[in-house]
Amino acid sequence: MKNWMIRQEGYVEEDIPSLGNRYLIGNGYLGIRGTLEEYEAKQLPAINLAGIYDRVGDGWREPINLPNGCFSYLKVDGNIYRLPEQGAKAHCISLDYRHGIFRRETTWHTVRGDITLQTDRFVSMTRTNLIGMRFRISADFHADVELLTGIDCEVWDLNGPHLEHLSMEEYHPEEGENAGESVLLVQALTHEEHIPIAVAASVQTVTPAEIQCTVEGKKILHRICLITKPGECAVVEKYIGVSTGKEREIPVQEAVGTIMAAKASGYEWCLQSHVERWEELWKHSEVVIKGDPIANEAVNYSLYHLHSIAPRHTESLSIPARGLSGQTYKGAVFWDTEMFMLDFFLMTDPATARVLMKYRIDSLKGALEKAQHYGLQGAFYAWESQEGGYDACSDYNVTDVFTGRPMRTFFKDKQVHISAAIAYGILRYVEWTKDESLLDIEGVRTVIECARFYYSLLLQPLTKERLEIHDVIGPDEYHERVNNNGYTNRMAKFTLDAAVQVIEIALKNHTLPQGYDAKALMEAFGKASRMLYIPQPATTGDKKGVIEQFDGYFALEDASLEQVRGRLLHEKEYWGGAYGVASHTQIIKQADVVTWLNLFSEEYDKDTLRANWEYYEPRTEHGSSLSAGMYAMLACKIGEPDRAYPFFLKSAMADLQGGGKEWAGLVYIGGTHPAAAGAAYMTAVEGFGGISLTEGGLTVQPSLPKSIQGMEFHIYYEGTEYEVKIEGNRGTVTAL
Amino acid sequence: MKNWMIRQEGYVEEDIPSLGNRYLIGNGYLGIRGTLEEYEAKQLPAINLAGIYDRVGDGWREPINLPNGCFSYLKVDGNIYRLPEQGAKAHCISLDYRHGIFRRETTWHTVRGDITLQTDRFVSMTRTNLIGMRFRISADFHADVELLTGIDCEVWDLNGPHLEHLSMEEYHPEEGENAGESVLLVQALTHEEHIPIAVAASVQTVTPAEIQCTVEGKKILHRICLITKPGECAVVEKYIGVSTGKEREIPVQEAVGTIMAAKASGYEWCLQSHVERWEELWKHSEVVIKGDPIANEAVNYSLYHLHSIAPRHTESLSIPARGLSGQTYKGAVFWDTEMFMLDFFLMTDPATARVLMKYRIDSLKGALEKAQHYGLQGAFYAWESQEGGYDACSDYNVTDVFTGRPMRTFFKDKQVHISAAIAYGILRYVEWTKDESLLDIEGVRTVIECARFYYSLLLQPLTKERLEIHDVIGPDEYHERVNNNGYTNRMAKFTLDAAVQVIEIALKNHTLPQGYDAKALMEAFGKASRMLYIPQPATTGDKKGVIEQFDGYFALEDASLEQVRGRLLHEKEYWGGAYGVASHTQIIKQADVVTWLNLFSEEYDKDTLRANWEYYEPRTEHGSSLSAGMYAMLACKIGEPDRAYPFFLKSAMADLQGGGKEWAGLVYIGGTHPAAAGAAYMTAVEGFGGISLTEGGLTVQPSLPKSIQGMEFHIYYEGTEYEVKIEGNRGTVTAL
Repeated sequence: MKNWMIRQEGYVEEDIPSLGNRYLIGNGYLGIRGTLEEYEAKQLPAINLAGIYDRVGDGWREPINLPNGCFSYLKVDGNIYRLPEQGAKAHCISLDYRHGIFRRETTWHTVRGDITLQTDRFVSMTRTNLIGMRFRISADFHADVELLTGIDCEVWDLNGPHLEHLSMEEYHPEEGENAGESVLLVQALTHEEHIPIAVAASVQTVTPAEIQCTVEGKKILHRICLITKPGECAVVEKYIGVSTGKEREIPVQEAVGTIMAAKASGYEWCLQSHVERWEELWKHSEVVIKGDPIANEAVNYSLYHLHSIAPRHTESLSIPARGLSGQTYKGAVFWDTEMFMLDFFLMTDPATARVLMKYRIDSLKGALEKAQHYGLQGAFYAWESQEGGYDACSDYNVTDVFTGRPMRTFFKDKQVHISAAIAYGILRYVEWTKDESLLDIEGVRTVIECARFYYSLLLQPLTKERLEIHDVIGPDEYHERVNNNGYTNRMAKFTLDAAVQVIEIALKNHTLPQGYDAKALMEAFGKASRMLYIPQPATTGDKKGVIEQFDGYFALEDASLEQVRGRLLHEKEYWGGAYGVASHTQIIKQADVVTWLNLFSEEYDKDTLRANWEYYEPRTEHGSSLSAGMYAMLACKIGEPDRAYPFFLKSAMADLQGGGKEWAGLVYIGGTHPAAAGAAYMTAVEGFGGISLTEGGLTVQPSLPKSIQGMEFHIYYEGTEYEVKIEGNRGTVTAL
Repeated sequence: MKNWMIRQEGYVEEDIPSLGNRYLIGNGYLGIRGTLEEYEAKQLPAINLAGIYDRVGDGWREPINLPNGCFSYLKVDGNIYRLPEQGAKAHCISLDYRHGIFRRETTWHTVRGDITLQTDRFVSMTRTNLIGMRFRISADFHADVELLTGIDCEVWDLNGPHLEHLSMEEYHPEEGENAGESVLLVQALTHEEHIPIAVAASVQTVTPAEIQCTVEGKKILHRICLITKPGECAVVEKYIGVSTGKEREIPVQEAVGTIMAAKASGYEWCLQSHVERWEELWKHSEVVIKGDPIANEAVNYSLYHLHSIAPRHTESLSIPARGLSGQTYKGAVFWDTEMFMLDFFLMTDPATARVLMKYRIDSLKGALEKAQHYGLQGAFYAWESQEGGYDACSDYNVTDVFTGRPMRTFFKDKQVHISAAIAYGILRYVEWTKDESLLDIEGVRTVIECARFYYSLLLQPLTKERLEIHDVIGPDEYHERVNNNGYTNRMAKFTLDAAVQVIEIALKNHTLPQGYDAKALMEAFGKASRMLYIPQPATTGDKKGVIEQFDGYFALEDASLEQVRGRLLHEKEYWGGAYGVASHTQIIKQADVVTWLNLFSEEYDKDTLRANWEYYEPRTEHGSSLSAGMYAMLACKIGEPDRAYPFFLKSAMADLQGGGKEWAGLVYIGGTHPAAAGAAYMTAVEGFGGISLTEGGLTVQPSLPKSIQGMEFHIYYEGTEYEVKIEGNRGTVTAL
């Protein structure tokens, strides 16, 4: 990894799934896995769409993958050259992660000599629906080349097939400057909602070539026949347009129109404007880390992924937990967005931050319905949110490896801290941007309904002068159905306070929705917040300063991580649930109290923060990619950036190194980790950089680990862009 | 089964465990399993003691079995004759269940002729510590017989060994009329508390015989050598005395004293006084059922078992769930006593009913400590109560058959309805006997503390004007950690009301314990009772009249019992717990709503009672022997005694027919079912007989099933004995 470039030399079949993630390109509207053009469904290629979902039978509801408009392969002298069937003499792929350009270069040895295929592809950052590809073919002999490139309708799905009434056709525009050109066109309808989708592809050859249309099974292809000259390079450009009925009434028009317009502009122009847009993005978002090239590159590679999946093409959409890398986790939006990704956008691209939060406001209806379904009030947001706030989460998310039976899990109905994340995100947006326009009537309603949700969860034990929240799952999912999880209670209190604050703003701005009694709500929420029980640090004993994660946690067996791991009978068995190896011990999946203390660090002294970090870290399995970042950030806040550093790197390299779980039995569960990427950003900027909001406004209090000499980055705050420069312990903030 | 006698002809080795239960004899102080004299530990003989417990290592704490003072076997002409090693020509055992006499008769064929061993044994109903045995040996030739009889110190234990420092000796009393006689004496200390125990045995021969003492491994024996004459019977009488440091400072004195006194009285006298005591018991308790000999015999056989385990020898003790049939269920006392057995004693032997409830009052300390341990107030009675109210219940009661791991169960910490059973029992005792002496200061304290326990469980949701109880297990143990279980809530309300009532009595009788503010408690309990949410019958729809067992029960899958059984992957897998086949369906283990409605039937009309019976019965697995009786009783109350009849017979024949679970893996879990016996009594007398307390006092409203023509029995009420005679639908009650 060097100069904004990652490369992979050689070919290892087992790496196909992880490379698909690591070499992903995207523009927020769609993502293309870093797979080779010749790959078919079994090799997990995907052109994965944001925000459009489908369900078949009893399978999980998931986003759709489009027919693969990038599909291509080569024939030379009548023989097929594709990986892995035809072993290559040399092969490499690379990703220019400064500009979102995926490249492959493969040389095959043929009986007459060597032939090299080189491709570039990008998903346009300026034209949402456009994918550009360029093929360069060169040989050291007069090769008789056929490039077959078109659209493969055999789509890789986890729980499909999602596309029905699929048609493939060759289409010739009748008018305009492209009149008569050959366009390949695939149209289909989604299974559940019959949403039309269209994929169009057209080519342009620089080198003289003969072009025909051909159908091979479920593929419609252009066969481009040309003869290479030694020392010259044959070039073919391809434009792929995609569209769905989600945005356009007649998506086929959009798909075809996109490629026609692009063709008219020319490939070089399309690429250049794409690259310029990326440069513009980096101008505001690049984090320069001095003295530590690994950290520098890992962070910016993380930001590349966040940029690639940012929904800039719309006003209201969020980011799935696995980005646009496929159908894993149902393409659903989790608390990851608000708690881990939001800050990056707030600080580098507030408009996108607004899009993310607008999605939550627009999906309030689903949250209200979910609460009602459980006999509760207010807004209970989806644990796995799809369009309209539909909760894709199942009551049975895990399979018992011993019996093969689905296990009842409680993520959907008991992980109630999700609604607080929405209130937190909205308030943080307003705090950081001072843009109160998000708090229009619906924005205000959203925060109030989140508070009302917690209000309806509150229980007053008859013998105690306090309110409690029972029967929840906190961020540590290994302990189910616990009472008074500190994180959950504190976030509920935050939400109640946030509602009071938002009502005040609404009264000022005249944005209080009708039917709400401001005074009564403020009184009720205020009183509930004051009475809500927040577990406190132990005041004496060997746990002095440590906060019990939930009622009874300290009474659980204090077994070590190694002991607990040693009790596994099956490598894939679930650690949590009712009888998992961790469930009745103090081993936790991920930061829980530490997440809380990181968010509210100003409420505790450093000794308390440290006591909790030191107590919980050895007891944390870090079974979630969300975990390391929270430990990293809190370590910075207790003045121990060197302790933070390995956790920071783990977050920053989550996708660069891979190593996460890729398979659960036969189901692919891998993908990118945008929350870890966001956590890496937060650790760099807020942790090491020490950027925070205090009463005096934006402040910088650097706390650099040994390996980092300085940092430079820009951040937005209250609509103004600032340049931050850090050298050692000194930081300066300059408005631009 | 005829004439108060059950017999088993022939010998089947597999029947050893169940015959051990079916032919049990006992006197409430100890029980002797119906095993043969020659059985050793592997054949599950037991002389099981009431109320004395021991724990070894991490094993379950359980009652102790004494060294087997009944051990005996026969040698003829130098050859050993014992079952099953030496097959018999004829063999039978019988139990005179009118008088608690176990008999065996076995004839072996020897080379010289046939020899028959016949034994009787009884556990004296008049001399608590005495076991009597008589051997009759007859042969059709001059047999050279050795009867070896003594004490076997190799004790069958589930989780032992419990006895340490065991000594075996021959002892010769120096004084008195038995001076110089040979007494076998075994002494030992229990492992945990070093309680001394003693077993003494002595013999008396009518036939001339030579007697020596001999030790064979862990047995100390008398070798009685005699020669039989054809046509005559050699008779040997044996007296066994047992005692423990629980009752006597020097138990060996009691053990020896007991046999010496018995010997002085003579075997015939001892037996006769025992038989007369049984006749006296039957005078007050026999239930004559006319026209249905099976029902008649099954009920009285059930009552035999209740009499055999009734703790008449003490002022404060209760009955374990498996009676005195061994160490199964840790010899612990469950809600079975109050909810299923108490009525029998109230109506036939109120003094014993008082002993049972006194045990609970005396074990209040354990209940207070248990509540405190869980951060609750008041008295949380043990789910599996041993001495002092110690809860023998483990957090891990079930083994996962798939992983071999212990499964976390919640019987101990969440089955909170147990304390209500204690309040219910005390109030029912007072109501039925009008004996307020049980409500002395400690009795009053007990009821108040039970109410205080529920008070501390009450939760007020901030959005509801009612109190709820969350996170419990109801009688249906297949659904764990549910909210607002109807049975639990109603029993909690009962307990709050009971406390108010008891405080009023205490004010009148000056028995209010110090430190209790009567007015404040009555106000608090009264208000809590009024606000406590009791689920109500559905008012419309296909579930009209049916009460939801707990919040969300109706939303569970409504699979049939056959469907659910068909999902089992392993015959021994647990149906409940987090992932059991029943857990996420409406299939329940045992009567739950039906138990509630049976106890409070006067609060609902017959249509409602019927709707619930008809809804829940097909959804009940009847996985507990407690279940059938509740369905039987409620069927009587809805005027359907013929529907009750099969459930009644199931309860009444629980021990007569066996068929219950005997083994869980390698652990013996069989035993007698006194709760089912009690339920059979209640169904006969209160269900079919229609005995109840109304405002007009004792009333009889018979509701006989077709097969029963009439009934006759006595019952005590308010200290007076009544004769009840029922012919068809007419019943008369006459004070005696």
